[in-house]
Parts: sequence; structure tokens; C-alpha cells
Amino acid sequence: MPDALERLKTRLAEQHSLDELISLLAWDQRTIMPPAGGRQRAGHMALLQRLSHELFTDPEVGRLLDDLAPLEGSLDPDSDDAALLRVTRRDYEKAVRVPAELRAEMTRAASEAAPVWVKAKATSDFELFLPLLERNVELRRRYIACFEPQDEPYDILLDDFEPEMKAAEVTRIFDEVKTELVPLIAEQAGREIDDSFLTGHFPLDRQVALDWEVVDMFGHRPGAWRIDPTEHPFASGAGIDDIRITTHYHEDSLKSLFSTMHEYGHGLYQHQLPDRIAHLPVGTAASLGMHESQSRLWENLVGRSLPFWHFFYPRLQEVFPEQLRGVELERFYAAINRVQPSLIRIEADEVTYGMHVILRFELEQDIVNGRVELRDLPARWAEKMHDYLGVEVPDDANGVLQDMHWSIGLIGYFSTYLLGTVMSVQIWEKAAGDIGDLEQQVERGEFAALREWLGDHVHTHARKFAPQETLRRATGATIDAKPYIAYLKKKYGAPVPA
Amino acid sequence: MPDALERLKTRLAEQHSLDELISLLAWDQRTIMPPAGGRQRAGHMALLQRLSHELFTDPEVGRLLDDLAPLEGSLDPDSDDAALLRVTRRDYEKAVRVPAELRAEMTRAASEAAPVWVKAKATSDFELFLPLLERNVELRRRYIACFEPQDEPYDILLDDFEPEMKAAEVTRIFDEVKTELVPLIAEQAGREIDDSFLTGHFPLDRQVALDWEVVDMFGHRPGAWRIDPTEHPFASGAGIDDIRITTHYHEDSLKSLFSTMHEYGHGLYQHQLPDRIAHLPVGTAASLGMHESQSRLWENLVGRSLPFWHFFYPRLQEVFPEQLRGVELERFYAAINRVQPSLIRIEADEVTYGMHVILRFELEQDIVNGRVELRDLPARWAEKMHDYLGVEVPDDANGVLQDMHWSIGLIGYFSTYLLGTVMSVQIWEKAAGDIGDLEQQVERGEFAALREWLGDHVHTHARKFAPQETLRRATGATIDAKPYIAYLKKKYGAPVPA
Repeated sequence: MPDALERLKTRLAEQHSLDELISLLAWDQRTIMPPAGGRQRAGHMALLQRLSHELFTDPEVGRLLDDLAPLEGSLDPDSDDAALLRVTRRDYEKAVRVPAELRAEMTRAASEAAPVWVKAKATSDFELFLPLLERNVELRRRYIACFEPQDEPYDILLDDFEPEMKAAEVTRIFDEVKTELVPLIAEQAGREIDDSFLTGHFPLDRQVALDWEVVDMFGHRPGAWRIDPTEHPFASGAGIDDIRITTHYHEDSLKSLFSTMHEYGHGLYQHQLPDRIAHLPVGTAASLGMHESQSRLWENLVGRSLPFWHFFYPRLQEVFPEQLRGVELERFYAAINRVQPSLIRIEADEVTYGMHVILRFELEQDIVNGRVELRDLPARWAEKMHDYLGVEVPDDANGVLQDMHWSIGLIGYFSTYLLGTVMSVQIWEKAAGDIGDLEQQVERGEFAALREWLGDHVHTHARKFAPQETLRRATGATIDAKPYIAYLKKKYGAPVPA
Repeated sequence: MPDALERLKTRLAEQHSLDELISLLAWDQRTIMPPAGGRQRAGHMALLQRLSHELFTDPEVGRLLDDLAPLEGSLDPDSDDAALLRVTRRDYEKAVRVPAELRAEMTRAASEAAPVWVKAKATSDFELFLPLLERNVELRRRYIACFEPQDEPYDILLDDFEPEMKAAEVTRIFDEVKTELVPLIAEQAGREIDDSFLTGHFPLDRQVALDWEVVDMFGHRPGAWRIDPTEHPFASGAGIDDIRITTHYHEDSLKSLFSTMHEYGHGLYQHQLPDRIAHLPVGTAASLGMHESQSRLWENLVGRSLPFWHFFYPRLQEVFPEQLRGVELERFYAAINRVQPSLIRIEADEVTYGMHVILRFELEQDIVNGRVELRDLPARWAEKMHDYLGVEVPDDANGVLQDMHWSIGLIGYFSTYLLGTVMSVQIWEKAAGDIGDLEQQVERGEFAALREWLGDHVHTHARKFAPQETLRRATGATIDAKPYIAYLKKKYGAPVPA
């Protein structure tokens, strides 16, 4: 029996190594690869993906799981081994339901669509994009049909990104958020806040040094991180001591600084996964939503907070005196938290961001449930943008074509951004309660206690439990929109500082 | 039959992809990986190595080769498919002779030895190194025993690096070189050449830009190359359009410039491998020696030639005016070609370099044939350094411990450095004959004809033929020391310019 467990672990460790290498190859491609190398890279990545999939869906895994069922029943459910068996069984049962042919077709559709999406977006040409979307939606329907019916078909897609979460639960949370956000946004949109000093000249070399300064100040083990420029920032790596975050430097703004704090949160999660199981699939992050809770926590709860800037603003002024000399802390704080309904999700502020996600989640449900003709999506998009944010969509590049997700078949993904944001406030408040003087620590530039609390209460569980169980263990509750809404109301409902 | 061939090609392409990824991971580790990532990297690389080996040694490959024997006999021996079957059969028959257990032991010994060698070299401690060497030599003996006896056991080791080359042939060539080099070195060593201006201050940013300028001037397809700093320079990549050369910048010298020209030669070989077979093992370089012929050609025949510096010296003076203002071309040319017997192979000049290799080749033969006690190696090393180069070895760090090769089991490798150098002159002379005005082109900074000639006459053959057959097809002759000796005598036997 222990022998069967060791055999299973060996195989899973190999599969996980291949998955880590796929991430590393993707990082390489998006940061430093000579562009002409792309032609060969696609084949390299497809090979590793196939090998990983073959390792995992081999009938031997099923036999080992059968052999290990008695052992699993006898183990403490909280133990690493019980979690490994539980998670592996769940993954395996899902994986073997999808025929290799369908999986290959989905992969092919995604890789063929990516460059077309780039072109469609560049030329704002929804007609060019529509056939890809039709193909992807059709493939997702076939994918859904591989599984036992759930409460609704969308649940099957969502489960891949946020295990055990249900569309009905997401709807309930998002409706609660929407009810509060729409009036809050309308109220904020009328305020006059000067943020002109956030646009100007921020020399790149100083931005690079500053990003490193912040990442080092937030904290990590030495010699284990990289920061590299890329087009669309992301966090990646090849193990808990090889963390690679990325950013996009804009000479005319400080966007990179906030994006780096966001990616730091993702990176720290990877960095603090428990060493004893980090080489196994069960040792990875709990979900996309839980990942986003970590990035949003560092970006917003720390990085856009007044205590943080009490500490760090003098340093920022020192680095960019030409831009910030004479700008008081209160004006700076108001500017970096300015609420401004806009067209583009990834540029949205903390308050309007949620509505961008809700819009996408609602449209995805309409797509999957066949309640919308795909060719009507641009019009639906524009209607919702008008209703939720009060903005008019000038063209599809600034509307339905702005995100890559749907073009590569990622339907059911968007909601995790807002689920994570909601959870980030619950986690922050529990951490603050446990630590006691968290705000004062942040005001002194001390982050060790927060980092360790997150390690001990969130990261330590890796993927041993479903995300909501992880959240319950960390905070005592499952997902709840109220703390998030209260946080936004307190921060943004109050009079503008100064 | 064609089906069997396609099945074989698919498998070989996968194996080759894994090998390319291993190279990429090694490049990453030696250039940009966060140092703490090394702990996980070893496992990742070992996994890909094992998967590559399993793909290739699977009995299915043997069955396919058997099935394809009739086809192979019917094909034009010069065709890609015939070469693929010939090379695969040769590789397969060698690979399956070595038990998995011995191969694993060799890999483990190499990876365990690497850090010990670093320490032994740093502390000049041969006693620390000796057990590793003993283990490696013992493993090589077991490796040799897996094969049919050859003229001498060393041939079996050499064949892995320089296919079909024999130790007796190497000895014949090296003896011929040695007879001429020893007096030439003694004659040169007395000359007074001022190269003081080659030491000083060469700002790093200008060196980086200059290396790129030279690589772009020598020529390559756009968007397909990188140059990165590393400790010990090498060339790597992940396909013909993802070429990654490396260099070590020294603020006080121009070493990086010459090392970059050297690595350009390696990179160009990879870059100009024929696209139609570059995804297969038969589409890689012919041998280490042939690779070195390309790097030495660009470093020495181009990069240390008077025509090149006629063209490029004004530019170099413009980049480093503080160092080179007032230094005439003739003095610069004499300085970069100064012959100076010294202790360290990788810092040796063009004339003394060969003796460093010959010394190692002779000692390796003594080791393999049991003619030397391993613990006596330091003394033997010192004797030969005295006899061949007239220098005294002060300690083992500057002697037998200087190279990593033996510590990781690379016995039989060194000779390829000099074989390549010898071949580089044969190739250069044939190219010059065919092109007609090659020196004049170099003097005008034109390298396209040379690049294309190398592509059409050397690189195009990839690994389809044994290295000597490749050389014969390129130049009309197999390896011959005379052109090399004549070149050195002409360049160095003449009076010092100016």
C-alpha cells in the first residue's frame, strides 16, 4: 500500500514538473524569447502538455487510486496524503471524462485563435473574431456534455477555475455587490479629483529600481525572485524558490508600481506554498480566486491604503521629485484612488473593477445558456456598460474584444477576479484582527507579520481543500460580500480626504 | 513502410524537442535563473533527460529500424531519410548497450561532483577532488566495457564527442602539431609586445552595445538571437530561430568581444542548420570538433585577422577612445595576437592554446590506459606544462583543477577543441578559394558570402554524415594539420608588424 502511494507520488511529481516547465516556457516566451523563436516554441509546449496529460490519465493512475481507496479511508482527512488522494481522484475523474480528441481540438482552437484575436482587436473587427468564438463555444458545449449534469451547465466550466463553486452562488454574491456598487459609482463619478501629476515623466531606470525596492520591502527569501518587463503582466516561475513576476513599464505613469504589488501577491503565494508538498499537484494554489485574493490584498489593501503611503510617500517623492514635489500625501492618496468609470477592465479602479467582471460573468452565462446570439454580443456589451458604468462603448476594441480570454476558450474564468477581490477583504480583516496592529505595522513599513500570517493561514493549505474550505480555515467563514462592500463604502463613501 | 518512417520521425522529433528544452533549461540556469531555483532545477532537468532517453531506447525504435532496413537500403545514401536511418541506427545501437542503471549512476556522479569541483578549485585541494575523479574513471571503464573492443579503449569515449574519430588519428595529428608548436612558442615567448592598453577601463554598457554590433554585423536573421552575461561563456538555444549566446563582461578588458565572436560561430552553426530536418536529431551539428571549427573560424580567422581590424579598428577606437586613442592599428593587432605561455587554457592565445589541449589529451589517454596513478596527475600536469610551454604550475587550481570536464565525467572531450581549430583553417582556406576575394570582403566589413558559404558547405549537412565526411564534402579533404601549421607559421613566424 505505501508502495502504491509512492508510485502515485512519483508519477504526480513528474506531471507537476512538466507543468512547471510549461509555465517557465510560457514565461520565457512572454519576456525574453527572441520573437522568431515562437515558431518552435508552440511545438515544445504542446509536447510537454501532451506528456503531462498522458502521465496523469494513464489507467495506472486509476488502478493506484483504486488500490489506495482503503488507505484513504483510514487517513486523517487533514493529512497531506489524504488530501493528495482526494485531489488526485477528483482531477483524475474529471480528466478521463474528456476524450483526447476533444482536448486536442480545444488546444488547437485556442492556439489558432490567439493571433486572430490580436488582429481583430487591433482593427476592432468583431466579424473576424466571431467564427473563433463560435468554435470555442461549440467546443465548450461538447466539453460540458462529457460530465454529469450540474445545477446548470456553467457550473462545469466554473469548476475548472474555482473548484466546487456554483454559478448560483456567484450570482448571489455578484448581485449583492452590484446593488451597492452601481449607486456608489454614480456618486463617485461626479467628484472632481486632480490626478494630473500621475501622468508625466517617470524615468524607466528609477521605476525598475523602485519595483525591486517594493518587492524586497514586502519581503521574500533571497535570490529567489525575478522581475521582468512584458506586454501583459503576470506571475510565473518554476518552483517555490524560482518566482518570476512581470510588469509593463510606462514611461509616463506609475502603473507598473501598482501592477508589481499585484504580482507580488501572486508570487508570494507561490513562494510560500509548503515545501513538503510543493513538488506535487496538491501543493499548488487552491484556485484562481484564491490567487487573486492574494494579489488584490497586496495591491489594494496594502498598496492603495493610507497607512502604506504615510510610510512610503516620502520615498516616492524622493525618487520622482520632478513629478511629486509639492503634491501633498492627501492629494496623492486621493489621486491613486480616484474612481473613474472607463472602458477597459485592466485599467479600472478598485470600485468600478467589479462591474467589469459582473458584466462578463452575466454575458458568459447568457452564452452558455444560449440566451444570446453571439453576433449580438457587442450590442449587449454596450448596453451593460451604459447601465452599470454610465459609459458609451465607441468600438469593439474597447468593448467585447478587449480581453483575450474568450478567444482561447477561457469561459468561466472572469468571475474569479471578483471572487478573489471579495475574499481579499475577508482575509485582510481576519489577519488584522489576529495581528492586532497591522495598520500600524504597514505604517512603519513592516510586512513580515502579514506575510507570515498569510503563509500560516492561507498558503500552507495549498490545494489540499476546496477554496471555500481554505477560506473557512483561514477566516472562519466562507465567501461573503459584506466585508468587501463595507470596505468600499468606508473608503470611498467617506468625504474625499483633504 | 512510409508509415513506420513517419512513426520513427515523430518519436525522434519529440526526443529532440526534449533535448532542446534541456539546453534551454541549462541556459536559463546559467544566465538568469534566481540562484535559489537551482534546488528544483536539477530535478526538472533529470526528468527531461530520462524522458528523452526512454523515448529513444524504447524497443519500438529497434522494431521500426528493423522494419525500415529494406527501405534504407533502397534510398540514396545522401538523402535526408537515409541519413536519418543511418544516424538513428548508430545512436540506438550505442544507447541500448548502456544499462539504465549505469547511465543513471553516471548522471548522478556528474551532478554530485560539480559543486565539489567548484570547492576543490577554489581551495586548490586535489585531495578533495581525487575521489570524484576515481569514481568517474571507474564509471567510464564500466561504460567502455559495454561496447565491442576498439583499437583502443579511448576510442569508445572519443566517439561520443567526435563520431568515428580514432585516438590513433588524433595522436598522429597532435604529434604533428606539437613538433611545430613547441619551437614556435619558444621563439615567440622571447618577443617584447606591448599590450598594456588592452587592460584598463572598458565601460560595460559600451561593451554590451559593441558585442551586439559585431553579432549584427557578422549577420543573422532578425529577432532570433540573444546575448546574455554568464560566468563561463557558451552558446545555446531552443531551435534555429532561438539562438542564445553568452559572454562574460570584464570591465578591465576586451575579452568579451573575442569570446562573443567565438560564440557567434557556434550560434551561426545552429542558426543555419537546415530547416527541413532541424527538428530531428539528424538535423543537429556534426560533432563538437565541427562546432569548434566554426567558433574558431569567426574568433581567429576573422576576429584576430588584420583585414578585419583594418575595417573595424577605427570603430573600436571610437567606442573606447580613452583606451585606444594614439594606439596605431599595427600595435593593436600585435597586442591581440601576442603569444604568451600561461597556465590557464581558456585564457590562452591562438598559438599556445593547442598545447593545453595536447597535454590534456595525453593525460586522458594515460588515465584510460592505466598508465598514470590518478594521484600523480598534478605532478604529471606540472611536468608537461614545463616541457611544452615553459611555465611552472604554482598550485592545482592553476593546474589540473582548472577545467570542470573531468569532474563531470567528460573524458575524451578536450581533443575536439584542437581538432576543430585545425579544421577551421582548412575550411577557411576552401571558403577563401571559392569566394575569391574573402579577405577584401572582410576588409570592407562584408560577411554575407562567408556566412552563406558556411551554410551551403558545412551547416547544410547537419549530422547526416560523420564529421570527417562532412569536412571532405566541404573542403575536399579530411583533417590535415598542415594548413593549420602553415597558417600559424605565416602569421606568427613573420616579424612582428611595425
